[in-house]
Amino acid sequence: MKRYVIIVAAGLSKRMGEGTPKQFRVIAGKPMLMHTIAAFDAVETSLNIIVVIPPASIPTWQELCKAHNFNIPHQLVEGGPTRGYSVKNGLAAIEDDEGLVAIHDGARPLVDKRIILEGFELAARTGTAIPCVQLTDSLRLVDTYGSRALPRTKVKAIQTPQCFLLPMIKQAYDAQDFMNFTDDAQLIERSGLPLSLYDGNLGNIKVTTPNQLIYAEIMLQLQNKKSS
Amino acid sequence: MKRYVIIVAAGLSKRMGEGTPKQFRVIAGKPMLMHTIAAFDAVETSLNIIVVIPPASIPTWQELCKAHNFNIPHQLVEGGPTRGYSVKNGLAAIEDDEGLVAIHDGARPLVDKRIILEGFELAARTGTAIPCVQLTDSLRLVDTYGSRALPRTKVKAIQTPQCFLLPMIKQAYDAQDFMNFTDDAQLIERSGLPLSLYDGNLGNIKVTTPNQLIYAEIMLQLQNKKSS
Repeated sequence: MKRYVIIVAAGLSKRMGEGTPKQFRVIAGKPMLMHTIAAFDAVETSLNIIVVIPPASIPTWQELCKAHNFNIPHQLVEGGPTRGYSVKNGLAAIEDDEGLVAIHDGARPLVDKRIILEGFELAARTGTAIPCVQLTDSLRLVDTYGSRALPRTKVKAIQTPQCFLLPMIKQAYDAQDFMNFTDDAQLIERSGLPLSLYDGNLGNIKVTTPNQLIYAEIMLQLQNKKSS
Repeated sequence: MKRYVIIVAAGLSKRMGEGTPKQFRVIAGKPMLMHTIAAFDAVETSLNIIVVIPPASIPTWQELCKAHNFNIPHQLVEGGPTRGYSVKNGLAAIEDDEGLVAIHDGARPLVDKRIILEGFELAARTGTAIPCVQLTDSLRLVDTYGSRALPRTKVKAIQTPQCFLLPMIKQAYDAQDFMNFTDDAQLIERSGLPLSLYDGNLGNIKVTTPNQLIYAEIMLQLQNKKSS
């Protein structure tokens, strides 16, 4: 089966403060988004890589690719006003009606080979593959009346890449309400389909805060040292 | 009101693999536990610091203190077989029946001044102060029948220091079942008392994995640079 990955990097990084959108911040020698793309390319060069970025950022991205001699083939797609629209645009760029697609956050540059391969394999067998990890902090459910403890061992944090059979995820995105979902797994579930969970990796963080950016940089530098 | 902090560092670091218990691992120039103690001492030198470690580690700790010229005053208390027993031993070392106590994980060396001070102030007013943070990943509740999405915005991850009025937490620990709780907030709640939540800090992580140890080291080095 043909394999695609849609890397969603169309956010405007409101939580990171002003300045360059975080996916273009240079860490460990190149923009974060290039590390994310390279992580997928390193696993499988025959992968079809689709990168979704804000329409206004396309010229910037093209200049960055030249400046960094970044030549991993990828198809650029314009993002929409929310993550849901951006993923839908990415899916629309895939003409195939068969195959597998991994949908991945551009802000998770530390994704590793095992998660990527296991995701494609599990989705080929079951239709879906959702990586998740155990949390290390205690949890509470908070509402307007107060809060109550949640059993930590029963709660999993969901990561990406989330991998799906193409017809299944395309059909789910044809539903009217995709714009209300920030998580593809939930959208699939809403369509009445079961989800296959598998072990993610605590290190596969979504870079959201300035401290996480520092962490990602250090880890990428360590990876570079190991591979050089 | 007199202020105490109980720093619980009596775990055996099963998740970190073999070798030195993580609280004694040297990062950014000294054992992690010394960074944690120093973070509290830096906020308020009149704080009474109680440190709970495994009984078998007491000679090691004393040697480490000499080797690192570590002279922040603290009272050593022997830990028990679970976190609950260790906290109870720490509370038993406080003769005062009035005052405030912060209970903190030794493996959270990145705790900051704002969290510590706000915790004492909130607990003085309301009896309890529990720092918590929003999660950045999507969440699922998993049971034997499958899994379902949890509304991420309603779930908070609980951190430490958790701060309490002394008589309140002592009474809660006199309950028979303290040994079943890994979280002091839950024990207080079980006693029928309300909890005051306040904003923690995503950077105040509990160091559990080798990658988190690397992260903590980097952040502590950055702090040292800023303060020197």
